[in-house]
Amino acid sequence: MFVEKIVSEGLAHNSYIVGDYTEALVVDPKRDVDSYIDVADSKCCRIRFVFETHRNEDYLIGSRELEHLTGCRIIHGGHLDFGYGEPAREGDIFNIGRLMLKVLETPGHTPESLSYLLYPPSKEDIPWVVFTGDALFYGDVGRTDLRGEEMKSELASTLYDSLHEKLMPLGEHTIVYPAHGAGSSCGGNISDLAVSTIGYERATNPMLSLSREEFIEKKKMENIPIPLYFKMMHEQNQRGPALINIKRAEPMDAFMFAEAIPDCITIDTRSPLSFASGHIKGSYNIWMEGMAKFPGWILEYEKDILLITERQEDVETARRYLARIGFDDIRGSLCKGIEDWQNRGMPLEQSGVYTVADLYERLKERKDMFLLDVREKGEYASGHIPGAINIYVGELERRLQEVPSVQPIVSICSAGNRSGLAASILKRRGYRQVYNLIGGTTAWKEKSYPTEKQE
Amino acid sequence: MFVEKIVSEGLAHNSYIVGDYTEALVVDPKRDVDSYIDVADSKCCRIRFVFETHRNEDYLIGSRELEHLTGCRIIHGGHLDFGYGEPAREGDIFNIGRLMLKVLETPGHTPESLSYLLYPPSKEDIPWVVFTGDALFYGDVGRTDLRGEEMKSELASTLYDSLHEKLMPLGEHTIVYPAHGAGSSCGGNISDLAVSTIGYERATNPMLSLSREEFIEKKKMENIPIPLYFKMMHEQNQRGPALINIKRAEPMDAFMFAEAIPDCITIDTRSPLSFASGHIKGSYNIWMEGMAKFPGWILEYEKDILLITERQEDVETARRYLARIGFDDIRGSLCKGIEDWQNRGMPLEQSGVYTVADLYERLKERKDMFLLDVREKGEYASGHIPGAINIYVGELERRLQEVPSVQPIVSICSAGNRSGLAASILKRRGYRQVYNLIGGTTAWKEKSYPTEKQE
Amino acid sequence: MFVEKIVSEGLAHNSYIVGDYTEALVVDPKRDVDSYIDVADSKCCRIRFVFETHRNEDYLIGSRELEHLTGCRIIHGGHLDFGYGEPAREGDIFNIGRLMLKVLETPGHTPESLSYLLYPPSKEDIPWVVFTGDALFYGDVGRTDLRGEEMKSELASTLYDSLHEKLMPLGEHTIVYPAHGAGSSCGGNISDLAVSTIGYERATNPMLSLSREEFIEKKKMENIPIPLYFKMMHEQNQRGPALINIKRAEPMDAFMFAEAIPDCITIDTRSPLSFASGHIKGSYNIWMEGMAKFPGWILEYEKDILLITERQEDVETARRYLARIGFDDIRGSLCKGIEDWQNRGMPLEQSGVYTVADLYERLKERKDMFLLDVREKGEYASGHIPGAINIYVGELERRLQEVPSVQPIVSICSAGNRSGLAASILKRRGYRQVYNLIGGTTAWKEKSYPTEKQE
Amino acid sequence: MFVEKIVSEGLAHNSYIVGDYTEALVVDPKRDVDSYIDVADSKCCRIRFVFETHRNEDYLIGSRELEHLTGCRIIHGGHLDFGYGEPAREGDIFNIGRLMLKVLETPGHTPESLSYLLYPPSKEDIPWVVFTGDALFYGDVGRTDLRGEEMKSELASTLYDSLHEKLMPLGEHTIVYPAHGAGSSCGGNISDLAVSTIGYERATNPMLSLSREEFIEKKKMENIPIPLYFKMMHEQNQRGPALINIKRAEPMDAFMFAEAIPDCITIDTRSPLSFASGHIKGSYNIWMEGMAKFPGWILEYEKDILLITERQEDVETARRYLARIGFDDIRGSLCKGIEDWQNRGMPLEQSGVYTVADLYERLKERKDMFLLDVREKGEYASGHIPGAINIYVGELERRLQEVPSVQPIVSICSAGNRSGLAASILKRRGYRQVYNLIGGTTAWKEKSYPTEKQE
Repeated sequence: MFVEKIVSEGLAHNSYIVGDYTEALVVDPKRDVDSYIDVADSKCCRIRFVFETHRNEDYLIGSRELEHLTGCRIIHGGHLDFGYGEPAREGDIFNIGRLMLKVLETPGHTPESLSYLLYPPSKEDIPWVVFTGDALFYGDVGRTDLRGEEMKSELASTLYDSLHEKLMPLGEHTIVYPAHGAGSSCGGNISDLAVSTIGYERATNPMLSLSREEFIEKKKMENIPIPLYFKMMHEQNQRGPALINIKRAEPMDAFMFAEAIPDCITIDTRSPLSFASGHIKGSYNIWMEGMAKFPGWILEYEKDILLITERQEDVETARRYLARIGFDDIRGSLCKGIEDWQNRGMPLEQSGVYTVADLYERLKERKDMFLLDVREKGEYASGHIPGAINIYVGELERRLQEVPSVQPIVSICSAGNRSGLAASILKRRGYRQVYNLIGGTTAWKEKSYPTEKQE
Repeated sequence: MFVEKIVSEGLAHNSYIVGDYTEALVVDPKRDVDSYIDVADSKCCRIRFVFETHRNEDYLIGSRELEHLTGCRIIHGGHLDFGYGEPAREGDIFNIGRLMLKVLETPGHTPESLSYLLYPPSKEDIPWVVFTGDALFYGDVGRTDLRGEEMKSELASTLYDSLHEKLMPLGEHTIVYPAHGAGSSCGGNISDLAVSTIGYERATNPMLSLSREEFIEKKKMENIPIPLYFKMMHEQNQRGPALINIKRAEPMDAFMFAEAIPDCITIDTRSPLSFASGHIKGSYNIWMEGMAKFPGWILEYEKDILLITERQEDVETARRYLARIGFDDIRGSLCKGIEDWQNRGMPLEQSGVYTVADLYERLKERKDMFLLDVREKGEYASGHIPGAINIYVGELERRLQEVPSVQPIVSICSAGNRSGLAASILKRRGYRQVYNLIGGTTAWKEKSYPTEKQE
Repeated sequence: MFVEKIVSEGLAHNSYIVGDYTEALVVDPKRDVDSYIDVADSKCCRIRFVFETHRNEDYLIGSRELEHLTGCRIIHGGHLDFGYGEPAREGDIFNIGRLMLKVLETPGHTPESLSYLLYPPSKEDIPWVVFTGDALFYGDVGRTDLRGEEMKSELASTLYDSLHEKLMPLGEHTIVYPAHGAGSSCGGNISDLAVSTIGYERATNPMLSLSREEFIEKKKMENIPIPLYFKMMHEQNQRGPALINIKRAEPMDAFMFAEAIPDCITIDTRSPLSFASGHIKGSYNIWMEGMAKFPGWILEYEKDILLITERQEDVETARRYLARIGFDDIRGSLCKGIEDWQNRGMPLEQSGVYTVADLYERLKERKDMFLLDVREKGEYASGHIPGAINIYVGELERRLQEVPSVQPIVSICSAGNRSGLAASILKRRGYRQVYNLIGGTTAWKEKSYPTEKQE
Repeated sequence: MFVEKIVSEGLAHNSYIVGDYTEALVVDPKRDVDSYIDVADSKCCRIRFVFETHRNEDYLIGSRELEHLTGCRIIHGGHLDFGYGEPAREGDIFNIGRLMLKVLETPGHTPESLSYLLYPPSKEDIPWVVFTGDALFYGDVGRTDLRGEEMKSELASTLYDSLHEKLMPLGEHTIVYPAHGAGSSCGGNISDLAVSTIGYERATNPMLSLSREEFIEKKKMENIPIPLYFKMMHEQNQRGPALINIKRAEPMDAFMFAEAIPDCITIDTRSPLSFASGHIKGSYNIWMEGMAKFPGWILEYEKDILLITERQEDVETARRYLARIGFDDIRGSLCKGIEDWQNRGMPLEQSGVYTVADLYERLKERKDMFLLDVREKGEYASGHIPGAINIYVGELERRLQEVPSVQPIVSICSAGNRSGLAASILKRRGYRQVYNLIGGTTAWKEKSYPTEKQE
């Protein structure tokens, strides 16, 4: 018997593969499904089922890929009209090897959300493991705001019931495997705990100690960004995502690359420090881990993508990250890197960089700097550099009218990556004096420089 | 934060590496410690501590290897006089990153056994994870027979207290990480559950529902083989095992190999089927997974080892398995395999093979077959082929006077591997008509042929 | 600049990838083209061309796979009507990076055979490397018998001209990269030299020191088996092989496997020793390396294949080998190995094994043994066990009327693998007393037992 | 039979492993010898011999490592008094498997230089392959200047004889395997040809078409930098280098790293672009490939080394590169990268970057820029930016008195890496206005900006 967690890095999405004897099941697969196939093959198991906990919003589900490759069945919530797979209802039972899996309806995050209980052989009266999807995380619970403001309270109330009437009664001993970990866009305060149980969550998860009213109030107040690509994801996940159409990113030299630029969107995945010293005009700077989700905020699905990476092997990683959120059309990559471009004397742009100490000194002298804090609202509220204005990086390109074009602009996040992306957005839109604050508010606070909290 | 379980295959020994920020700890490391170093490096952590749950018997502990390579501290039970490391007592506290680890004395399996509690940051009042060593397994508890018959009851009583007064009170929610899984020589009925909790064990572990008297009675009745090498292991583990002295197994052609044979012990790790069709006189047949522990029953520590493997890469695996239980002196391997030997016309021996159907038919006709069941006593008792005599494979070479030399002998286990080893022992000791029953009692029962249970 | 040789193991087929700056070319690609893509990607090169030296007979060419994946151009001989690619003629020139490639027509093996000359930058007057396809090997030359007996002399004469008027004049210094190495079905005496030159071949290749008449005579006398699948290969290679349709070999347990057997052909890739001790009725025993070509002698293209392997990872290797010669339909594999089958008590057959010493002794006593030598004619002629009859393993199943059904049969090759395959053929066709001679004639000769040469 | 070339990247050092049957030999091993062991193991060969072509200057030889691990014999030139191994003389013969190796004395580069001829079985009259060490390269010949100016002519004359009386007579067909490829410090104009022969070299190598007088004259004029670490290398290589003492580079967080800095030398292997945007004061910037040799110009052997890398896996690569040239003492690495440092607000320095277009424009306006060309003399002579002063990067730190401290300095090489190292040297020595020209003279020439050649 085995249970393996397979994480989509960057997305902080957890999927699981469970096997016994010669059969396996997968919970919430990512779209690049080779990891599951590899595990199943190494254990000599056939993948018999995919179980979806809900219609996911933050990535394309790999269910149909697995169905295509293995002939497995796909199970999901019966309260939504999916374009593929089979609906399941409370109490439905499935078996792989000697294991039994039972369906538990736990609506709230979405109306059709399911949890799945797992029982070892001859222990069918006491739940062993529960896959909770986006109902219950470690240290947090699922979002209830994705259906719009008006539904927030109702969904929060439903979720409260699912938590307290369905999940808590499973018993303190039950092991909890949720769909997301710390850093996910699907929760605000998910902890980075490695594993947890119903009992440990009951004792430590702040959302579980609230009364129904407090819980609903808290969820109503919640303000987490909704990435723009979520809409595309949930539409496709309901219909059934297209099978990945493997196309190789063509290795290009600088001349080929230059020719392709006008038709494509160019993404530069190098570090913000490298980018600042020299980059191709018009390119977005998205650091590697950020590639897992920020393209979904920034890019249009219609355009082909060109990649500039620090190393050749990053192209494949970027390709996977992009495919997970539905960007399949990578036209090519600058295969010998920015050096190939620079050594041919082709034009490079530069942008500025501030350390926190430099900025601190500079601010004493000049008053004309526009401090642009691109973190999430909640981060901004909890402490920012005095005078900084907040526009979330994911919304920046659509709110440029709020950014003055004549002042020097200092782009700020918590470290330097999101602010690097923001700086690249400003540069490609023609802003000339753009500085990235490296170390960001984290370094600023480490130095004990003054901050403001939002009133 | 991360927690990874690292299993010594074959031994079913679990070790763990836990890390947070830039620090890590290891619980009960195996002797080939590169796995821990690799995990720590990939997470950018320094290994700060090794925690031993007890003086292990079934493998050499890797603590001093890690100390040598990383400068980490070694912690173990204060109630035994170890030749290295530092003693810890109930309530002692250690920190890595933001995590806190607390010592819990849980004697019984050994007098100095410790469990270790782990607490995430700012949750120091509620235990999250407990490493239970050989006190509590999934579905079973530790052995209390390794100090001899006379100590069995006393240790069982002590263990009962540790379980019910130390571990159960931690709370149902607490996640349990024991030192062994299914198949270990350190327990009779450990389940192959992937993960468990205090609450799940309380509900399902049969040893936890017994009264003190029943518990002690049960432990007194327990009859699990004590591998011969255990003595060597616990002596060395108390003193501190020698650092591995890496010597390469010399790749040998058939002539070199033949020259080395008289000074060495030869182990053939090919499948019992291959071995039966052709093997070098005097060699032991230990299948690859069996290499993790059966050499400890069979071999003398004084002699160098020669290896015959199905594939070249098996040599490295065998070397690791042997090193884990203290056999470091591998002289060489027959590098181009048995083919090299056979193609030079060098002498090969053969032994016989029966399928269960063949044996069943044969037994109808002939009465002179000696049926030798080499499984453990408990397995034998639960059902064997009528007329079969039980001598455990690990004791066979010392009990040969019980095996008649004139009859044909059928060697029997549950599948064909241990019986293959037994067949090779008989062959090397001069028995001529030796047959291995492939499929063993498992196949015999599948065919519904008659069995006897021990009265 | 780089030149890499990529060998199809078992087929002893050489392909080459050459690159400079950002461009690469491939000569005679195998059908599983990921190796070329990986090399090109790691060097940041686009594959611009595939050059075929001739219409290959012993494997399916990977040209169209590469074209599909990279958009490269395919070049081959202009004197044959191919269903894809572009024809080239003497003197045609192609460039990648700074390298120049020039076409040299070298007919003989086939009428449209080409060699390709490679020139480094600014050295276009002196050939550096020549890819000779099947015109010139190390120590041998190409076959001229594949068009039938009647064409042998004419083609030999043409080949003689290509060798002496086209290739020898390139100069002693020129490096030779042929399409095959030792062990290929495309030559009788190819040496296992790692690299060679025109001059070294002129000095040492016995075929190059013959007069035209001697050369033709020698080629007329040549008698190398023509594998049955060659016909299928050259037809498809002329038309353009189908793109590989990746289908996973389903991991099957013993019951599923048993159900599938009647519709499929079962291949057991374990060692002949394992096979002899226990195998499933009706299965062919083809050792792993033999999988590269012997399926082409034995199997029908219409039936799906089932695999029994020693290890799980062998399934992927077998799949590649089979795809290279056009067998794409692998239904499944016995994923937990023969142990799964045996432990369920499902029926196993056995066959016999002789060591050479045993056979030598036995032959003194019994005269009823049928000695079946399944090596190639040439091998047989150069020395066999007295009394042995020669039927090549590849033809055995079609010549069974020559094998008596009542006598014990000893299957003989040079080691034990081809004879193991022959033994399995006899077993599946109902022969009951079948013995495989392990060590074969190699061991027989090592022991200095008597042999006969063919008169 | 197999021959594999194993290249030390960055050093452009070629070593070779040759095997037949169960024996292998290695020519000129690098110090991290696991590659040879791995190849030998995978081919089931014992390494019987190391052959050194000469006392190497550019890396520490791995002979004693291999001797330690495999018990092989070490052979080198008899005309020098080595502290280990065995001397060989003209005509000495060694065998591995069926191969014969013969010693050919080819002095010139060093007095004791040997070449080694390889002969396949039963072809002992015609040389097949020659390992030429530093006597003959592809497109160039060995240096004769390492013994000082006064010896140049004499050694050149000796080398001329070795080339024309020893190597050329081997015959055009003989395959040449030299000790270095393009980019090595051991030759000025080695071509990047993948393979070559005596005949191809005779026809294309410009050094082989010279008369004795021209040859000597040419060698006398040659002016290639002699890296400072060469002295240390040849001393150790004569005595026998110490076995590598594996010490792990400790993963350090920013605080530990900061504490260690004062006692150590800090090397930052990130790209010059990253370095320019933010680096730790006092660190050298050596790009990854440059790590293979530039530490030998720059560092003192007495101090421990600290590493800052772009990625965690670079630490191991850097460790290997450093060990090859004798730097074994890596104290630690900034394990979570420069981000860890920056996010704690610890001080970062910046330096400037110019694109060629920027510099071209700037030079029109300002006349106070100090243009520092850090390429080799020969590169500088063949074309530099007007007004640039040449100080080779390897000598810069010892010639700082030639660099004015008040002007802005533009550091220039052919691309941006060596100039990045030079910029870091200037920065650590207190220069404040330092700019790295990215794209360097390559880009400058691509843009057709004016250059000067040295008179």
